[in-house]
Amino acid sequence: MSDPYERMKTSGIDLPPPPRPAGSYAPGKIYGSLVFASGQTPTSDGVPAYRGRLGADLGVDEGYAAARLAALNCLAELEAVCGDLRRVQSILKVNGYVAASEGFEEQPAVINGASDLLQEIFGDAGIHARTAIGVQSLPGGAPVEVELVASLST
Amino acid sequence: MSDPYERMKTSGIDLPPPPRPAGSYAPGKIYGSLVFASGQTPTSDGVPAYRGRLGADLGVDEGYAAARLAALNCLAELEAVCGDLRRVQSILKVNGYVAASEGFEEQPAVINGASDLLQEIFGDAGIHARTAIGVQSLPGGAPVEVELVASLST
Amino acid sequence: MSDPYERMKTSGIDLPPPPRPAGSYAPGKIYGSLVFASGQTPTSDGVPAYRGRLGADLGVDEGYAAARLAALNCLAELEAVCGDLRRVQSILKVNGYVAASEGFEEQPAVINGASDLLQEIFGDAGIHARTAIGVQSLPGGAPVEVELVASLST
Repeated sequence: MSDPYERMKTSGIDLPPPPRPAGSYAPGKIYGSLVFASGQTPTSDGVPAYRGRLGADLGVDEGYAAARLAALNCLAELEAVCGDLRRVQSILKVNGYVAASEGFEEQPAVINGASDLLQEIFGDAGIHARTAIGVQSLPGGAPVEVELVASLST
Repeated sequence: MSDPYERMKTSGIDLPPPPRPAGSYAPGKIYGSLVFASGQTPTSDGVPAYRGRLGADLGVDEGYAAARLAALNCLAELEAVCGDLRRVQSILKVNGYVAASEGFEEQPAVINGASDLLQEIFGDAGIHARTAIGVQSLPGGAPVEVELVASLST
Repeated sequence: MSDPYERMKTSGIDLPPPPRPAGSYAPGKIYGSLVFASGQTPTSDGVPAYRGRLGADLGVDEGYAAARLAALNCLAELEAVCGDLRRVQSILKVNGYVAASEGFEEQPAVINGASDLLQEIFGDAGIHARTAIGVQSLPGGAPVEVELVASLST
């Protein structure tokens, strides 16, 4: 796998500082060669960068951008927990939660913002299994929340 | 464990072709002896076989049938990813998401459609831990989405 | 790690009997040194101890207490599955589902009820990765559902 930091540099992606957990939990937890990254919303410097619900307040393009930022925050916490993103061997599973109106059906197009970023940064190793669902409301009024499980090289 | 294909034959269950992922992700991902199957909705030949919300548009029996079909689609993707369902050692965890009205309380009876199918096909090895929740909306207007984690024999 | 039973005694926490699964699944499933605990709601003796939605029927303090009870039920099922909570090495991941109104934003403060209990009982080993989301409705009209993944000492 090529270097994720080089890929970020090439794509002009800056890894933000890891967001502070919103409650009494850890940003991530390592077990053997598995790492669980806590759910992240699209905050920037601790402030919501997007708010509202898909199908009501935001369009799919904004949702896509929000999911991309949430996934970037997941990577920031992964780096904080693992020390170095080059330790990430593979992204195994992504769960994407979309705050949505009753009739909203395009959760996959929104969560592609997270999936595309992961593939951009990790290449084929970033391709993952995924579930996307539409939920009622998210912490801080966020439109999207993203969590992931990754494997680490040993 | 007895042969899942024989059990399907006995029960008259036909494994459908694996649904195409609805976005930029994989149908499943193997890590060591674990496999993560992406969330599946009750589609048939790529078309929604059920639409709507439990507690509003569909009754529990229809929801049960939809969950059964979603789980069958999960097995189709598991087979595509693993090559052979006889490699499945055990179903570890199922998460079932039910598009539901505000007052709907029977998520477990709906997701039993997935759980019962898994036990029918894998016997005791199909009995799993589970979470069932009621969500706002699902991809393509689906009433149910099912994802799972399984272990593979090595 | 100090003894979880001694910590519970010191804190005056009584482990309830494990709730009966609400459908055709197991209370938990062990795979190697991983254990998946099924989603639990705040029931007591099989009866809902809390009902309703956050942001509508219940305040954050009640939600916190409900999440604490749901997590205690998770530990009861973990004990039933593992035989002894002293086998739990670490709580890896918690997912907390909050039945919430459209505008509710304090899912983290609610699910802290689960996280704080786990840390109270397991100390540092109880600190976990976490995701908290707001959902439409939960089994039996519960305000909260909690599930977890833990590691076992071998």
